[in-house]
Amino acid sequence: MKKKPIIRISEVQKAHEVLKKYLPSSPLLHNPWMSEILGCELYLKLENMQPIGSFKIRGATYRISQLSSDEKKRGVIAASAGNHAQGVAWGSKQLGVHALIVMPKSAPLVKVKNTESLGAEIVLEGDNYDEAFQAAQKIAKKTGRIYVHAFDDAQVIAGQGTLALELMEQLPDLDYVIGSVGGGGLMAGVSSVLRELKPKIKIYGAQATGSMAMVKSIRAGHPVKLDHVDTFADGIAVGTTKELPFRILNENLDGILHADDESIAAAIVTLLEKAKVVSEGAAAVSLAVLEQLRKKIAGKKVVVIIGGGNIDVNVLNRVIDRGLIQKGRRLRANVLISDRPGSLARLTSTIALAGANVIQAIHDRSEPSTTIDRTEVQLTLETRGSEHSAEVLKALRDVVMDLHVIS
Amino acid sequence: MKKKPIIRISEVQKAHEVLKKYLPSSPLLHNPWMSEILGCELYLKLENMQPIGSFKIRGATYRISQLSSDEKKRGVIAASAGNHAQGVAWGSKQLGVHALIVMPKSAPLVKVKNTESLGAEIVLEGDNYDEAFQAAQKIAKKTGRIYVHAFDDAQVIAGQGTLALELMEQLPDLDYVIGSVGGGGLMAGVSSVLRELKPKIKIYGAQATGSMAMVKSIRAGHPVKLDHVDTFADGIAVGTTKELPFRILNENLDGILHADDESIAAAIVTLLEKAKVVSEGAAAVSLAVLEQLRKKIAGKKVVVIIGGGNIDVNVLNRVIDRGLIQKGRRLRANVLISDRPGSLARLTSTIALAGANVIQAIHDRSEPSTTIDRTEVQLTLETRGSEHSAEVLKALRDVVMDLHVIS
Repeated sequence: MKKKPIIRISEVQKAHEVLKKYLPSSPLLHNPWMSEILGCELYLKLENMQPIGSFKIRGATYRISQLSSDEKKRGVIAASAGNHAQGVAWGSKQLGVHALIVMPKSAPLVKVKNTESLGAEIVLEGDNYDEAFQAAQKIAKKTGRIYVHAFDDAQVIAGQGTLALELMEQLPDLDYVIGSVGGGGLMAGVSSVLRELKPKIKIYGAQATGSMAMVKSIRAGHPVKLDHVDTFADGIAVGTTKELPFRILNENLDGILHADDESIAAAIVTLLEKAKVVSEGAAAVSLAVLEQLRKKIAGKKVVVIIGGGNIDVNVLNRVIDRGLIQKGRRLRANVLISDRPGSLARLTSTIALAGANVIQAIHDRSEPSTTIDRTEVQLTLETRGSEHSAEVLKALRDVVMDLHVIS
Repeated sequence: MKKKPIIRISEVQKAHEVLKKYLPSSPLLHNPWMSEILGCELYLKLENMQPIGSFKIRGATYRISQLSSDEKKRGVIAASAGNHAQGVAWGSKQLGVHALIVMPKSAPLVKVKNTESLGAEIVLEGDNYDEAFQAAQKIAKKTGRIYVHAFDDAQVIAGQGTLALELMEQLPDLDYVIGSVGGGGLMAGVSSVLRELKPKIKIYGAQATGSMAMVKSIRAGHPVKLDHVDTFADGIAVGTTKELPFRILNENLDGILHADDESIAAAIVTLLEKAKVVSEGAAAVSLAVLEQLRKKIAGKKVVVIIGGGNIDVNVLNRVIDRGLIQKGRRLRANVLISDRPGSLARLTSTIALAGANVIQAIHDRSEPSTTIDRTEVQLTLETRGSEHSAEVLKALRDVVMDLHVIS
């Protein structure tokens, strides 16, 4: 006997009708470059192109649209310093509802400003997300404001599910969908729709290795809470699994995979280079896990959901550096050369002949760790990939006294 | 009496029908964030989302599609190390035509590889573009190959014009279109269509200040050649204006503006942050000039064409640094502090209290330029903008012996 779905397709269809008034479908673009690299027909569903740069706009806006007029008057409240805060602020603005967002005191000013600029009122409370959440709950009780949870809410999940209805219009014969899982709201919504309408589509979730509460929950068969999370992908750094999204994902997913921060950084670089889009770590993880499905997806139509693009550009700079190191296209090494005239010239001409570009060279004769007749040079080089890096290292070893690769 | 247009609309419509078989319309996305900043309704036409990451795919593919079967057998040839090379390679592959691309010997290996991976044969000839062009002309004569010019060709221009037909479907009531001008092929095509179909739409071209041959040509009333070009926006670093695009642009444009490299870098950062897309300098210049039209475009529907996204990620890293400096969000300063215990701690706690993040601090006591009792610290700080930078500087001046801002 077929189980009754937890999220009704009729509710997602209703959400779809509501959201159409505010948001056009986000683009679904075929990517020939990445298709060739991965041996499948790869499509990117670009939620980073949403007005607030994230899919969270869907669930929050739909949830707020369904409030009674009395509830709308009382206003909404949410705890978040990230995409959910902006989603709630945006949705509230469209619907003429007052939004109060509680952020931890440590929230970066740029996030406070971005959310304020969408018309929300910000309160800074607590030293971390959990404390901000507790404070928001208290304020909700005291003021009668409606609390809008980022993922532990059937209407929010239904709102996120509208993405799958767009996919059905944009690419009805797709074979695979991969999307990231933090709290699990996005993939709970998407999988609820696909399981109903196209049960044969394979659905995978992706988490950061340093924050894989849902992976562990599904392995354990019940929701688990992590002691700590450690990933730069802050949008999916969720340590506590909630019952509702857990039940849906546990039933619907064909698998849930994870990738470490280095692979996520490399995926961000791939998306910059091959798709010309900015993705945050919480989104690029969906691409990062794809390598693990290579055999299964061969020749198939695969949709990777790029859930958001809200990454600080200073972080992006560091991610590019890490991603290039991970891809073998940036080489860092400390070399020892003799402290005689011409040594540095010989070193740099060797690098040039090997076809590498010098990004940074620090030649510091006052460095105390070197002996009197030797001097250390710290090199950061740009190469064409792992093979080329190996060639460059070989050429360097012939002209230096010692070489130590820094990873 | 109305002049006969140089590019017939019927030819662009024919190109549109041909290209539909190979390429979906590129996305046109409304951007609420940038609309608010610029006081208009801003739409981005995302040609960086094309399979080769650039609009050049349009003109090249249409041109090659129109060859006779005899010409197709003889194959095509082009000189380019950039987007045109990839456009010709891509179009040739779709149409089963052999493509030979001549690149200068200095072409970066990554560009050679990218074009080869699209199925083209590469020949390295000459020390610069002009010499590669001469070599390609010679080979064309000798072999009977058809030379495909990047912009001095009516069919290529008609192909680029298909972008405007898409705009007519996507946003028929637009008021302004701004696109970049290197050789002028894109805007010659776009303006030919708009002048025919919607004569009231205002059309502007954008060039890099360091490479504004078309600006000078239109001022002079005839095509001019620059002695040298100097911009990091390599896709529009064209020093020689050709008669055909000049005549069209001279007649059709409402204006042609220019922006310097610093402003182009800042526009690239804006597009990364506010639109989540990667644009090359040759594309972002269209956004960079928009500030100059602020009064005219107030409240209007404005389409900015983002022509391409092919920028090296290493360059992107440097562009982010420059763009943040230009936006006042990165502050570099050399400060002198006394060489006593606690001085550095006092400096860094002042920075922290002022709310700035330290990106880099180089404290080098062996630096010979400082006097015995003073030491120099080179600071790179992340701030929230120009105002905040001024506050941070004020706080720093109170605790240091000397301060010198580096721009």
